[in-house]
Formats: sequence, structure tokens, C-alpha cells
Amino acid sequence: MDDSVLLTDFYQLTMLQAYFDQGMNDEAVFEFFVRKLPPRRNFLLAAGLAQVVDYLENLRFTADDLAWLAACGRFHQRFVDSLADLRFTGSVDAMAEGTIFFPDEPILRVVAPLREAQLIESRLINLLQFQSMVASKAVRARLAAPDRQLVDFGLRRAHGAEAGLLSARASYLAGFDGTATVLAGRRWHIPLFGTMAHSFIETHVDESKAFLHFARSQLQATTLLIDTYDTEAAARALPPLAGQLAAEGIAIQAVRLDSGDLGEHARQVRAILDSAGLTEVRIFASSNLDEDSIAALVGCGAPIDGFGVGTRMNTSADQPYLDCAYKLQEYAGRPCRKRSEGKATLPGRKQVFRRVAPGALHRELAGDTLGLANEEQLGTPLLQPVMASGRRLAALPSLAESREYARAQLATLPPMLRQLEPRNDLAGEVELSAGLLALARRMDELPAD
Amino acid sequence: MDDSVLLTDFYQLTMLQAYFDQGMNDEAVFEFFVRKLPPRRNFLLAAGLAQVVDYLENLRFTADDLAWLAACGRFHQRFVDSLADLRFTGSVDAMAEGTIFFPDEPILRVVAPLREAQLIESRLINLLQFQSMVASKAVRARLAAPDRQLVDFGLRRAHGAEAGLLSARASYLAGFDGTATVLAGRRWHIPLFGTMAHSFIETHVDESKAFLHFARSQLQATTLLIDTYDTEAAARALPPLAGQLAAEGIAIQAVRLDSGDLGEHARQVRAILDSAGLTEVRIFASSNLDEDSIAALVGCGAPIDGFGVGTRMNTSADQPYLDCAYKLQEYAGRPCRKRSEGKATLPGRKQVFRRVAPGALHRELAGDTLGLANEEQLGTPLLQPVMASGRRLAALPSLAESREYARAQLATLPPMLRQLEPRNDLAGEVELSAGLLALARRMDELPAD
Repeated sequence: MDDSVLLTDFYQLTMLQAYFDQGMNDEAVFEFFVRKLPPRRNFLLAAGLAQVVDYLENLRFTADDLAWLAACGRFHQRFVDSLADLRFTGSVDAMAEGTIFFPDEPILRVVAPLREAQLIESRLINLLQFQSMVASKAVRARLAAPDRQLVDFGLRRAHGAEAGLLSARASYLAGFDGTATVLAGRRWHIPLFGTMAHSFIETHVDESKAFLHFARSQLQATTLLIDTYDTEAAARALPPLAGQLAAEGIAIQAVRLDSGDLGEHARQVRAILDSAGLTEVRIFASSNLDEDSIAALVGCGAPIDGFGVGTRMNTSADQPYLDCAYKLQEYAGRPCRKRSEGKATLPGRKQVFRRVAPGALHRELAGDTLGLANEEQLGTPLLQPVMASGRRLAALPSLAESREYARAQLATLPPMLRQLEPRNDLAGEVELSAGLLALARRMDELPAD
Repeated sequence: MDDSVLLTDFYQLTMLQAYFDQGMNDEAVFEFFVRKLPPRRNFLLAAGLAQVVDYLENLRFTADDLAWLAACGRFHQRFVDSLADLRFTGSVDAMAEGTIFFPDEPILRVVAPLREAQLIESRLINLLQFQSMVASKAVRARLAAPDRQLVDFGLRRAHGAEAGLLSARASYLAGFDGTATVLAGRRWHIPLFGTMAHSFIETHVDESKAFLHFARSQLQATTLLIDTYDTEAAARALPPLAGQLAAEGIAIQAVRLDSGDLGEHARQVRAILDSAGLTEVRIFASSNLDEDSIAALVGCGAPIDGFGVGTRMNTSADQPYLDCAYKLQEYAGRPCRKRSEGKATLPGRKQVFRRVAPGALHRELAGDTLGLANEEQLGTPLLQPVMASGRRLAALPSLAESREYARAQLATLPPMLRQLEPRNDLAGEVELSAGLLALARRMDELPAD
């Protein structure tokens, strides 16, 4: 990860210089939240907290950074010198990774001296919005195919290295079974999957020989890619190959389809394999899939056991960003409220209280109250202390633990939120507390400046 | 940059193990190309070559990587040992960064021993597709506003750290004037821009005091953000402030608008400033802009001098990926052709020949011929040698030089390609040479396997 403190917006530094000159460094409260639900999301899934905590614990200007700042012509030396001892000394309260959340609900609150809380804005948004966006996209594929294997195939078209790594992490958190990205598998203990590329077939003059060569070299049962020339012809050639390999003690686990009408090919290939007794060989499909095409394939009964999901998931292609913000809610004990057209914020330190109630089959999410942090409200407070005095209070959950937590969260989804299509009533899950509404009203009565 | 050799797909390693077992490591030829033009792009702009060359020159497995591979249970020791001396020893021919290109045209060709050429696939696509995608998006904002200031504001919603950095680079290449991302400015000498955030205003009880504090702390003329509470009220309060600051020798360079109807606010603010004699104070606008909203603002005569363009540009929001591939075209002297439905490739080593002819006002792009590398064709061959024996042949152009080259390329765009709307004739700019067509036909007559 490229966690240089200079991975920030230039205005953070120009503002810090002004704060320094004014001696303004009182306690500031910022909250990160999403303003609006994208048209085709019924809920969002929080992700990225672990990377934020790592970033905050390591925040510092190197001597090299300071020399560059002093030389760039925009900052005076006393200010640059003041940055040498800057560390993150504040506190963080946040929703656990894997928590379901809704618009306007803060998923993370920072309380810190102003210069620290301001400087971190750009990278903190960069980390939280990307992983939450990918997790909120990937979870839809999981809802579309609860019992199929789902594997992240998207490194190549992810937006750079970190996007490839973090989208592997976020999709695993959201319920994927693994990734093809080796470094992500290594870093976070995510199960690794991989088959073969068309190029492997093409380097051989004979497709069957390519299959034999590949299968004999692997230490596990293999998946063979069968669409390079003619999918059904390749499937028909498999039974004698499988017999030959079985005699050598080598199993074929699956075939992969990567082009054409995947449902139709799967049906034909399934019939060919079954009629030859290869009922144990699974069918794996890939090719620009997303939750909608997966739902369509599952819905029409395509005999596909697993899906490789890439580009559209890793880039959240139908919605490649969340309308999110990290906003000042309080400075030096005074609540703040931005009132820009269409971008007004809710003032004060807030808390999200979640109510869960018995549903048709299990306990269901019944609604959230967005209130002030010091209010008493029904429900479980979702923002919990994570850091104090600049250090984590306890070890964060492992990725596997967060994935289990996300699974438990998803079990509370009522049917209306579980469907892929937008819900058809417009009522939100979130109500504002009386205390929060009263504070917002009080602030609107104050003069603007 | 996270350039670990393990930033790759798992199947590259399983294939490499099979190649190792078979002793297959003859010369392979791979080409990177885009299959289809996105619906709202009339051309693409090549970018990312510099990062690819860095990656290839540094490709190696560390002792730590090898130990992990040996322990992960999927690879045998002799294969893992064989990776210790793996380096990229091949050659690369490529289009210069900033070159206009079209579908099916390779923008980069790798010729290398099979294991090297295969292993690099994932990261090579990851680097080329992202920067080419962003450059091809950003250039549209430049075409929409040829004479306005354009600044990249998108770090926070870019997909991770590297996406933030590389989108700053790609947009500058495509003609932007600078970026707000400090680390990108530092790394590639891109001019840095930054104003202030709403939080700066809100930490002060009085908006005017916030403006004074900020302006007095900056070493250059400043830009003031005036939409936190009431845009026109803030504009009306500026003239006395400007006078006070002028007496101190401090200039206000611009005001920034960030919400509401930007065109209408700009007109009102311009009138307020002009009537007070502040005709030199420029107006800068931001708020979820893209080439369409910029074109609309420019088209209706909004008095806006510069635009901060973020999320929609950095994520290429209307088209967050290119349908691209890195495909084997030749192995051990034998041309290869994948024939999967809808994904068939053109075989052999290819070259793109560009014809430029006198147009209405200047020399215009007249068309490309996609031919075989050893064919003679009219036009300039766009793929030029960049690396041989694993090392760069000469220093690559600086980013500033590539930006100048892109500007010269854009000057050759005929009006039909220069417009934002899709061209209304369907004829492509690319014709296939007789030699390439003959080779493709010959290969289709060969048996599939």
C-alpha cells in the first residue's frame, strides 16, 4: 500500500498552514457517511476499516516529505517544521466491517485535534468508499447465487494495483469464496483459485494434449478451459481424456466456459459429461458476469456450479462510486452544519441505533434510528470505539471473522432488501431522533456567518 | 507502486508450472488491444507505457515470494526453484503514450520466452487499461473546454491509492492543467492546485474571518470557497474583504462554486464581482462534473474560468473499464488465433500504419491500416521498439513531453472524432491489410485442434 502522508489533496496542506498561523487546533469531530443510496442498491456493506486504522497508526511526515514541502514554494518554514511531530492522536468510533448500513448513517467518526482530523480526509475517504462500494456490489452476486461458488477474477481491469488487492478483500468479506489475485490471497489468507488461459491451449497444436499437460502438472484436481475453439467438441473429447488421467490417479474437477450463451453451453456440456458418467465434473463459468447475469443463469436452471466474477464487480461497473463525504460535525465543542444546496449535513456527533425483531423466518432488521451520540435510543449502537489516543484499542477482527459477521448481518435482511431490484416502497430504514432534529433546527436558526 | 511479482492471477503460476514440466519456453508473441470502442468514445488515447516498462525491468521473485510459493501446497520444488532467476528478457514494441488509437489495434507487443510473456499478463493489462481508460475519458473534458483550466480533483473517490496517482498522471497527459493529489504532483512534476474545504469555513464562526485567515496564510494568490452557506451573500461580502487584503498586498485569485446551478451562480457572482471592480477575480467550479456538464456550462456561456473534475473522470464513470485483452498471437514461430464466440482474435505480429492528410484547417488523421509487422504499407508505423533484451532502449519521454505529443495528436482529429457525441457514420478508421486477412483466412481453414 502506498501510505505516504502526501497521498492527500493539496488543500489539506494549505488549510493546515492557515490553522497553524491562527493557532487553531481544538478538537474536531468528522464523520464519514454516504449521502444517497445508488439506484440499484437496497443497502450498503461497510468495509475498509482495517486499512484506515493501519493508515492512521502510521501517519507521519518523513524528513524527505518535509524537505519537499519546504522547497515547493507554497509553505513557510515554521509551518513545515511544525509537521515533523504530527501523528494521529485522536479517537475513532466505527461500524464493524461487514455491517449493513444506509444513507446518512456515519460508519466512522474521528475525534482529533483539527490538523490531524483534517489532513486524513482524502485517504480515509479513498479507503472507505472503495471497499464499501465493492463489498456492496459483490454481496449482490452472493444474494443472486447463495449456494454457488463465487470467485474474484478481476485484477486485470481493476483500477490499479491497490484496487485489485482491496477488491479481492472486499468481495471475500461480502461472501465470495476466493480470488485469483495471488498477492491478495497471500496477504489476507483468502483462498486462491485459478484455471488456465486460452493462450495455454494455443501454445499447443492439439487441444487434448494441452489438457493432459496441464492436468499432469497440477498438485490438485484441475479445471480445464474448453471454449477456445468449439465448446461442445472439447466436452465430447473429455471422457477418454478423463479415463486416461484417472488411470494415472489424476482427477478433473471442473470445466470452464468463457464465451457464448453460457446457460445453453452449460446444459449441453452437462449432458455430454453426464452421459459419459462424468457426473462429478463441475461446470464453472466466466465472461463479463455480474449479479444480473448470474441471477438470470441461476433462474433459468443453468447447471453451473461456480462463477468467476471480474470487471463488473471489481469496478462496481453500474455504479463506480458512492456519493459519500467526510464532514466536520463539531469544532471546539460547537456543532457545525454545512448548508450548501443539495449537500446540507446533519450536525453533531451521531450514533446509529439498530433494531432487530423477529421476522417470518429469523430475526430481521426492523429499522435504524440516527440520533446524537449521547442520546438513549432503542436498539444496538453500531458505532463502537476502535481507536483512542491514536492507537487501536484491541486487535481488529481477522478478515475471516469479519466475513462471518457479514454473513450474520445478511441473515437479518428482510426480503424487500434482499432482492436485486430496487425496493418498491420509498420509506427509508432510517429515522432521525428527536434530539438530532432539534439540533438541526436550532442551527438553521443561527445566522450563516 | 505495489509491483510484487505476485500481483498476478493464480493461473499464470499454474500454467508456468505446466510449461516448466513440458520444457516449453519458446518465443511467444502477445499483443495488448481494445476489442470495442465504448458507446460514448470516438477514439482512445494510449497511456501507461512508462509504468509497464518500470514493472518489466524490475520483475523478479524475491526469496520470500519463493518460500511462500513452495509452502502454499500447489507447486513442486523444482518449479519454484526455476523461478529464482526469472527476469524479463524480451522485447517490447509500443505506441508512444498520448497516441490516438482504435479498436483491434495493438498498442503494445511483447516478444519473450513463453514463461515471461505469460506471467506479466495480469499486471500489464492492469496498468495499460486503467491509464488508457482515464486518458480517453479526461481528453473529452479537454475537448469540451479547450481554453478553460481543468484540474483533477478525484483522489478521494478513485479506486485506491494507485488509481488516485495514475489518474492524476493520465489526465495530465490528456491535457489537464494539474491535480490536487500532492504525491502525484511530486512524483511526476504535475502542477498542484488546491483551494479550501467547507470544513475550513465551518471551523470559523464568521465566514469572512475564515476568508481573511486563509488568504493571509498563503504564499500565493488564493481561491476562496463561497458556497458553504449562501453563494451570492458570500460574493457580496467579498469586495470589502478584497480591499482590506489588497491593502496588505494580498490578492484573491478566484472564488470556487461547489453546489447548486453552477451556471446561474457563476453569472450572478460574476455580476457582483464586476460591479465592484473585481474583474480580475476568476470563477472556478466543481461538483460532480464531467465532459457533458462542462460542455453544457461552456455552451450556455457560463462565466467559469476553470473546473475541478473528480470522481466521474477518475473512475471513467460512464465506462469504468475497457473491453481489452493481451492475447497470444504467435508461439514458436506459429501464428495463433483464438476462435471463441464473439472473442476471436486476429493472428500474427501486427503493426498499425497511420495515414495523415491535409484537412480543412490542418493535417488530419485519414485512417489506419492494421497489417502484419513485416508488411509494407502506406503511413507511419505506430508501434516502435521500446525494450530489447529486457532493458529500455532509450529513456522514455517525460510526462511533459508525452503531454505535448498528445496535444499534437489531438490536433489531427477530424471534426467527426472531435465531437463528444458518437460519430454518426459507422465506418471505422481501421482497415485490415491483405496480408493480415489472408493469414486469418488460412488459420480458419486449419483444424481446431
